[in-house]
Amino acid sequence: MDDLSKLIEERAIARLLYDYSYYLDMNRPSEMAALFVDECKVSYAPNFGAEGIEAYKKTLEGIGTFFRATSHHNSNICVDFIDDTVANVRSIVLAIHRYAKERSDGILYGQYIDRVRKVDHLWKFESRELRTTMATDYHVRQSNPIGRAP
Amino acid sequence: MDDLSKLIEERAIARLLYDYSYYLDMNRPSEMAALFVDECKVSYAPNFGAEGIEAYKKTLEGIGTFFRATSHHNSNICVDFIDDTVANVRSIVLAIHRYAKERSDGILYGQYIDRVRKVDHLWKFESRELRTTMATDYHVRQSNPIGRAP
Amino acid sequence: MDDLSKLIEERAIARLLYDYSYYLDMNRPSEMAALFVDECKVSYAPNFGAEGIEAYKKTLEGIGTFFRATSHHNSNICVDFIDDTVANVRSIVLAIHRYAKERSDGILYGQYIDRVRKVDHLWKFESRELRTTMATDYHVRQSNPIGRAP
Repeated sequence: MDDLSKLIEERAIARLLYDYSYYLDMNRPSEMAALFVDECKVSYAPNFGAEGIEAYKKTLEGIGTFFRATSHHNSNICVDFIDDTVANVRSIVLAIHRYAKERSDGILYGQYIDRVRKVDHLWKFESRELRTTMATDYHVRQSNPIGRAP
Repeated sequence: MDDLSKLIEERAIARLLYDYSYYLDMNRPSEMAALFVDECKVSYAPNFGAEGIEAYKKTLEGIGTFFRATSHHNSNICVDFIDDTVANVRSIVLAIHRYAKERSDGILYGQYIDRVRKVDHLWKFESRELRTTMATDYHVRQSNPIGRAP
Repeated sequence: MDDLSKLIEERAIARLLYDYSYYLDMNRPSEMAALFVDECKVSYAPNFGAEGIEAYKKTLEGIGTFFRATSHHNSNICVDFIDDTVANVRSIVLAIHRYAKERSDGILYGQYIDRVRKVDHLWKFESRELRTTMATDYHVRQSNPIGRAP
């Protein structure tokens, strides 16, 4: 993979992350699901995730009614290519959740550890793991640790 | 527009967004205004915006005295070129406002929907619309909605 | 420096900033120190900084025990090259600090003003100055000002 191709593909991969957040914040779950390969693996927390696109779609139910609004800010995106069509991606997220119920906003500070794959000219999530750095008033109690050194 | 040119122009457009935030946080309104074309259209909220650079400059009055400090964090920048000199840009912003008055910080979570144009080798804002995802203790009561699906 | 090289080096410099934040949040101070040149100058605040790598390493002691978690979000990265191996970098940071002690999270909104240098094919920090836009419940009382116009 030459230098120019790497830069182009990196931008396309960043866009994948941005589109995920955009569709999530806009409550458009079917467009979120289209960003994943059929045999995807997703883990938001222990016992909260999915294997395969049909199971993943189920985890997206309720975004519209559980939250009044969400805002997902992605940054610090680091792409490491395995080959021309597969890459590991590490990034961080600030996610604010305003609930339909009267309660304080839930704030999540986390890392996304993604494996992305290019399928028919489009980058998609093959696996996506959310690791939690810390959280405030967040409704998900369990979390995948980031593995901070003690 | 070839691939390399797209990457170069994308960086220049991101820089435009960053410079806007920098000059805003530094309270340098005349340098902010210089980032807009003369016939610009700006909407921060219904009844809060401007058409034309002279009207826009008026909206910038009072940054220095109304706020003690602001911090504008831009991310998730998505550039779609219309042609070599025009592009649509979608991005998100986290904006913290510390008021001169004693009151809680106003926090805005929003989307910027921009049209940018290259004029004399420089990218400038042709139109800029702020859409509000949610806000906390923010002084602007009305807002342009992001259009989240119900 | 041709256009393609600039883009490649910019990405490498952004990665330097991201790796700094990653190792900080992961409490891996020796990997943080490796991102600085031996004769580095660092200023986090007046009377809180270091000259030279050995002094810098001392400032990193206690990350592991003073904080339970931190999350550093870098954005608005602006790279200006001086020549092929030196660049000035301006960026902003949102940094959340959860303390080991029972107290509110310390939040810092700031600018990083960096000078980076390419040494043996790797970009490193030659100087790093943190300027504080504002802070909330943060343990560091003094700060370098951003120089916001009055």
